Amino acid sequence: MPRRVAVVAAGTSRKWGIFPGTYRDLISEAGKATFDSNPRIKPADIEGFILASVFPERSVFQSHVATLAAETVGVKPLKLFQRVENMCGSGTIAIRTAYMAIASGLADVVMVIGAEKMHTPQPVETYLSMLGGVDREYEGSLGVTAPAQFALAAQSHMQKYGTTQEQMSLVSVKNHTHAANNPYAHFPKACTLEEVLNARPVTTPFTILDCSPITDGAAGMILMSEDKAWEYTDKPVFILGTGQAASGFNYANVPSDLGDWTMLQKAAQDAYRMAGVTAEDIDVAEVHDCFSISEIIITEELGFAAKGEGGSFIADGRSDYGGDVVINPRGGLLGCGHPLGATGVAQGVELFRQLRGEAGVRQVEDARMGLGHNLSGVSEHHVLIYGRGDL
Amino acid sequence: MPRRVAVVAAGTSRKWGIFPGTYRDLISEAGKATFDSNPRIKPADIEGFILASVFPERSVFQSHVATLAAETVGVKPLKLFQRVENMCGSGTIAIRTAYMAIASGLADVVMVIGAEKMHTPQPVETYLSMLGGVDREYEGSLGVTAPAQFALAAQSHMQKYGTTQEQMSLVSVKNHTHAANNPYAHFPKACTLEEVLNARPVTTPFTILDCSPITDGAAGMILMSEDKAWEYTDKPVFILGTGQAASGFNYANVPSDLGDWTMLQKAAQDAYRMAGVTAEDIDVAEVHDCFSISEIIITEELGFAAKGEGGSFIADGRSDYGGDVVINPRGGLLGCGHPLGATGVAQGVELFRQLRGEAGVRQVEDARMGLGHNLSGVSEHHVLIYGRGDL
Repeated sequence: MPRRVAVVAAGTSRKWGIFPGTYRDLISEAGKATFDSNPRIKPADIEGFILASVFPERSVFQSHVATLAAETVGVKPLKLFQRVENMCGSGTIAIRTAYMAIASGLADVVMVIGAEKMHTPQPVETYLSMLGGVDREYEGSLGVTAPAQFALAAQSHMQKYGTTQEQMSLVSVKNHTHAANNPYAHFPKACTLEEVLNARPVTTPFTILDCSPITDGAAGMILMSEDKAWEYTDKPVFILGTGQAASGFNYANVPSDLGDWTMLQKAAQDAYRMAGVTAEDIDVAEVHDCFSISEIIITEELGFAAKGEGGSFIADGRSDYGGDVVINPRGGLLGCGHPLGATGVAQGVELFRQLRGEAGVRQVEDARMGLGHNLSGVSEHHVLIYGRGDL
Repeated sequence: MPRRVAVVAAGTSRKWGIFPGTYRDLISEAGKATFDSNPRIKPADIEGFILASVFPERSVFQSHVATLAAETVGVKPLKLFQRVENMCGSGTIAIRTAYMAIASGLADVVMVIGAEKMHTPQPVETYLSMLGGVDREYEGSLGVTAPAQFALAAQSHMQKYGTTQEQMSLVSVKNHTHAANNPYAHFPKACTLEEVLNARPVTTPFTILDCSPITDGAAGMILMSEDKAWEYTDKPVFILGTGQAASGFNYANVPSDLGDWTMLQKAAQDAYRMAGVTAEDIDVAEVHDCFSISEIIITEELGFAAKGEGGSFIADGRSDYGGDVVINPRGGLLGCGHPLGATGVAQGVELFRQLRGEAGVRQVEDARMGLGHNLSGVSEHHVLIYGRGDL
């Protein structure tokens, strides 16, 4: 059996949005917040360092960013270091990589940072970089960008299951309402159904409030092997299970039912099996609501709602406080923004706090088990299940 | 104890150099060569996929390249996928990541591809991308590029240990002579000491023949857990040990003795300890001769030569056929070129063939144990030790 792995520290950069400093400044804030969350851990304790960052080559003209980031946060990784990238899901993959490093025995103490500086002096640079996030040659260059791809998924889901635009908008209402409790969110302000429906149209059926914004942000986490973890905290949060699956890259290779995310089903089932739990055991989930439709499909494929019933699940309040499972308590990507490499790590930070009972006004009552989900397009999914140390 | 991990297939793209096709074409060639090397393995057997690639964002305007590459080689990774990057050492890190994935139990069968398309229609783009490989803000923009950094290391080593320009040039002579036995090398042609010394100067003490060239190339490998490996081959090559260490990123943070690579010492000692072997057990090594001085310092820090005696080690023929250890039989980075993400994987391909007795005219007699070494600057090192399955 591989060794158990726990999260023992976590933090994010302050107010997400348009960050006024450099890429290094952003990383530094997340590093400081992470160390501040557990004063027993010193930079010299860190043996491994994983950075999630998608396109610093374009946004800050820099490759070779893992050791840049390690140096920025004061860490000398004497056993392990690397950057990982898989577009929007990079943060969760960084945590999985730290898990593998510890479970395989290559290191005992690994720090993860996710960071993305997306706003550049030339906005067109951000736009062009995002085109490189889809198949640039055959999709990006023709305008088949992320909003268009997810709008097609929405239309498929509406046609097949009768999902309505109002139901999708309610995802945005819930997550923006949650974000109002999160001062670090890009948009810490609630909104109404009417505001979502009447916002500026982006691509049918999305208005601008159905879409997550372009955001700068960073987040960090420290993971340890079980024996080490208990030395550094009385409240470790364990990684109980994980799964990841992809069926293709180019949108033409995605199965024709664009509203059925079979790869998420696969990744979730693998994670549940590894953790020995089911969807019913999850108290709180941070999922990838890059567009409002995403959360509806995600609740179905994760097994929270029956297939096709994701729309009524949100409309009936079953994913809000007091419901079956609280989804996106920090405000989701819609409310917090989506700084690519940082998102999955920030989801983990929120779950770490929730499972330790340290989420303040956002606290989910008696949260014992949490699930983090990232995607990198409709056919690439990454799932982590976290559990309280006293379980 | 983590599970043992073996390499069971390996191949590279054909003639390295200026590749006439696209990034996808390059990846496709390496994928085909890898599958062709072991016809028992089908693309459907692959559960995990790791891509090493440094700056496709700049060279082909594309992020999100792991699943692009998986799709290109016909693989649907249902358990694990990601790109890894740490500049020149990315390839070895990709193999380490596959090792961790298997040893930790997240997957049984993982494919690794390393690929870099460095030549672009605008040569200045390659130049600018390489500036992002050092600290762009404080070094690259001021001209403290890789040749300058390694020239400083050479000058330090010459001053401290009496190493001569002739000794460095002999590294280039040896590796170009080896490359003449490798039709896939960028420069498959031997050269003389006089040719190296009289070649065009780059930066003191390097001539152009002391420097590895800008090269397009790709390489692939398939790794399996031990039980699976014996199902697919009678000659698995095992990963016996690995180490990695970094002390900093910015050159100003490197210890002042630039010719002493303490981080390589650390990484090598960890790898030897994990494998339960010493430098004397290594029959063949593929090491990172990005500049001729590098191989001299590497032979010292790996423990093949005493400290300060790397120059006489090469001059006395101790790293050539018939010597203590055969270093860079495929021609090294000097002869083969250095397509960043591909290099570490291609080193592994050569060691796989050497340890299976399939290296043809380059075969090192009775090669039982091999060592692969990548670096990402003078203070970041990555080491893998491979051993024959029948040991």
